[in-house]
Amino acid sequence: MHTVLAGGVGAARYLRGALEAFDPTEVTAVVNVGDDVMLHGLRVCPDLDTCTYTLAGAIDPERGWGLVDESWQAMAELGRYGGENWFSLGDRDLGTHLFRTQRLDAGASLTEVTAEITSAWGLQCRLLPVSDDPVETRVTLADGDEINFQEYFVRLQHDVAVSSVRFDGVDAARPTDAAIAAIDEATTLVIAPSNPIVSIGPVLAVPGVRERVEARRDRNVAVSPIVGGKALKGPADRMLRELGEEPTVVGVARRYRDLAATLVVDEVDAVLVPEIEAAGMRAIAMPTIMSEPGVAPALARACHEAGGTP
Amino acid sequence: MHTVLAGGVGAARYLRGALEAFDPTEVTAVVNVGDDVMLHGLRVCPDLDTCTYTLAGAIDPERGWGLVDESWQAMAELGRYGGENWFSLGDRDLGTHLFRTQRLDAGASLTEVTAEITSAWGLQCRLLPVSDDPVETRVTLADGDEINFQEYFVRLQHDVAVSSVRFDGVDAARPTDAAIAAIDEATTLVIAPSNPIVSIGPVLAVPGVRERVEARRDRNVAVSPIVGGKALKGPADRMLRELGEEPTVVGVARRYRDLAATLVVDEVDAVLVPEIEAAGMRAIAMPTIMSEPGVAPALARACHEAGGTP
Repeated sequence: MHTVLAGGVGAARYLRGALEAFDPTEVTAVVNVGDDVMLHGLRVCPDLDTCTYTLAGAIDPERGWGLVDESWQAMAELGRYGGENWFSLGDRDLGTHLFRTQRLDAGASLTEVTAEITSAWGLQCRLLPVSDDPVETRVTLADGDEINFQEYFVRLQHDVAVSSVRFDGVDAARPTDAAIAAIDEATTLVIAPSNPIVSIGPVLAVPGVRERVEARRDRNVAVSPIVGGKALKGPADRMLRELGEEPTVVGVARRYRDLAATLVVDEVDAVLVPEIEAAGMRAIAMPTIMSEPGVAPALARACHEAGGTP
Repeated sequence: MHTVLAGGVGAARYLRGALEAFDPTEVTAVVNVGDDVMLHGLRVCPDLDTCTYTLAGAIDPERGWGLVDESWQAMAELGRYGGENWFSLGDRDLGTHLFRTQRLDAGASLTEVTAEITSAWGLQCRLLPVSDDPVETRVTLADGDEINFQEYFVRLQHDVAVSSVRFDGVDAARPTDAAIAAIDEATTLVIAPSNPIVSIGPVLAVPGVRERVEARRDRNVAVSPIVGGKALKGPADRMLRELGEEPTVVGVARRYRDLAATLVVDEVDAVLVPEIEAAGMRAIAMPTIMSEPGVAPALARACHEAGGTP
């Protein structure tokens, strides 16, 4: 089994490559739930949905989030009323949230609902929320205000400085049995190229997860989300700097060295391999920018081999 | 003030006539909330929305419910997942429910949210939910099962026999001050041509409302929803029969005689005027089928005069 600790876009692209490289039924993602949010009564799970829509080939290629062939009638009406509509929910996408909310209200677990959703899209891999319990990533801004992650990420377009991040509710959250098994039983466990602080961070913060991952460190491989000192997408580089870490592959290595033996970095960072190794991780430099065809499956294969041969 | 006890379609058409006949700021509807329903996490208020959309000129003229220029992308996705989608929520319509749910979650009352919605549609009249508290109309079928009203009305398309109706939660519900004032201060109070059992019934069942209406009986006018022994729309005639009442204007008169001095019936029922008067109500026979132009404002004017001159 090829198991991936996953956030949103970067993880989804990695997983798409893994589905091409391996038997899809052998691919499992353990997905962040810290950016889940209740909006207007609906349970919205952006990372699970980004993975689902991407793997189903239904993600909007231009926006990079949400569904293709989307319309925005509900949001237009919400705007007419002066309602809060900074988080855009497309009409098709709303169908997902309506279904999830309906099933959760009927007593299904998030794990069960997610399996129903991925099955309806024809996915053969498994997407497992790390926990069925609510966890809320909260961000304290430099001015002292603490806000929900989506308010930071979407409403403020992450264009503000952050002083700290915490995961509300995480101490009471339990990882699911399926997520723990997927970590324990993986041939290779990959930490996807997602934001280390707000995508991978909440997965690891669920009690028991970090210990399980560390216990099998030698068969774990992380893929750096930082390329040439920048995040390919999102605020990972700025967040690392604002929280006092180095926004380079070396900073990533310092964050991940207890979790994985190997760090895969982009070829543009090959020059930093000695520094990564000095920080305590084996390093592989290769193409990691997955917008190029063929890169993601090759990356998945390389990770799998690196994990299988520590 | 011209105040109307209101359900859905029939009340909405009457109100449209009243807005044409009178200063719109003098028209107030006290609206049923018993058919409100939580669907997939959203608070849906069919009677309030039918009144709003009709008065805004935005109701779909062919379906008779929901908004014009509607699309159904969210329902199509919900169907893909195998979710319960027997209650069709259009994409535009979802904007209303998202807004209402968002505002209620933020602590607004249903009265406040309704005012915000009607104001956004440019309505000058007032639509007042009879209560801000939850009331749920429940229907016991002839086979003994008790179900939510919308399951009866929409899912089963009211194509089953009913043995009783009750309004869950109504004993603990309080009428709003605004609704009570609209009843007490009306020049004429009109009982709209809505289903007497499941539209007007829950309005009257909110503690205090029936007494207030009865106390001013001489200035109250009811419009019969039964024309020639049939409901123009919906199951009012069958429900009356199934509950042991007479599905005619005479049956309506027996139900309403303590509530209003006058019953307006359609001209096709003119022959029954003596029976209505024998049952204890003054009767006026005139055109009441409001799909014909000019009928609704003339009906509103006739009601207003009948109430003002008991």
